[in-house]
Amino acid sequence: MQKNWKIIRSVAKESLRLFEAKYNYLINPRNEKEVEVIVLSGNDAVNVMAVTTKNTVIMIKQYRFGINDYTVEIPGGLVDAGEDLLIAAQRELREETGYSGENWQYLGKIAQNPVFQDAYIHHYLLIDAEKTHPTEFDEAEDIQMIEMTLNEVQEGLYECAFQHPHTVSALVLGMRKLD
Amino acid sequence: MQKNWKIIRSVAKESLRLFEAKYNYLINPRNEKEVEVIVLSGNDAVNVMAVTTKNTVIMIKQYRFGINDYTVEIPGGLVDAGEDLLIAAQRELREETGYSGENWQYLGKIAQNPVFQDAYIHHYLLIDAEKTHPTEFDEAEDIQMIEMTLNEVQEGLYECAFQHPHTVSALVLGMRKLD
Repeated sequence: MQKNWKIIRSVAKESLRLFEAKYNYLINPRNEKEVEVIVLSGNDAVNVMAVTTKNTVIMIKQYRFGINDYTVEIPGGLVDAGEDLLIAAQRELREETGYSGENWQYLGKIAQNPVFQDAYIHHYLLIDAEKTHPTEFDEAEDIQMIEMTLNEVQEGLYECAFQHPHTVSALVLGMRKLD
Repeated sequence: MQKNWKIIRSVAKESLRLFEAKYNYLINPRNEKEVEVIVLSGNDAVNVMAVTTKNTVIMIKQYRFGINDYTVEIPGGLVDAGEDLLIAAQRELREETGYSGENWQYLGKIAQNPVFQDAYIHHYLLIDAEKTHPTEFDEAEDIQMIEMTLNEVQEGLYECAFQHPHTVSALVLGMRKLD
């Protein structure tokens, strides 16, 4: 049986724009050794698998600064401080694509990266999404919308077409729900 | 049509144990505004869906420092500098579980997090895995092995049982390959 790890000390490091960095110090219950780990602390995020009335899925193509390349993802982004998760999902979808709708379902959540981040991403499904608003991009965004059929999404999952792990985890749940 | 983003300046920031932090400065082709982004630069990683001769999948339960909780994942870890990807996958599986085998297949790769990381994780499938070695845990590891049936893995994907996005993306590809 695995014994519990306890954080014995936590030291704020500095702000890295998207998160605060801190070092946590723990005792490994297996060998009693002290371990120093870095944790990037940030807000939770949301993303949305939005299915239109034509049964297409709203994907966005955008430049991603980490890999210096474009990705195809579902819409999403950070939850503002104090913001309701569903409101954040509706806001991100509207800002990035101009789509909205009434038929929302919560699909589940996954740790953004449990190794060194403390935040989660919450996955939503919207059925009968419709274009109702203009887009509102952030200054650092440049987004192109793409509609894919459900078959294309399923094939994309098998072909590594979606180079964002949080898009994959959301689509796995969303495709299952639609099944 | 989306125009290209170009990195106009890159400034090393500091070492954060798992990665080097740097700031990149780009011009957004949509509005010509300069954008400052943080990029965490690190080694690629590998993970392995290992299926035993009994048709079970080797999962590991371990404490994850980011979320301060245990996760159930497939084995994996960082590729050492200059190390071959397959060798790294074989090494991580052996160190964390003591399992090895001959029938390896490359499943594909996904960006670790394209938003702010430059590295990828490469997914492997091993069929007919067998226990051949003792485990060798790092000082900061405390790992418990779990065997799951293929059905349990499939259900786990639908129930958010695997709180590591890179485990999800590997299992999606591995389950498809086994289909």
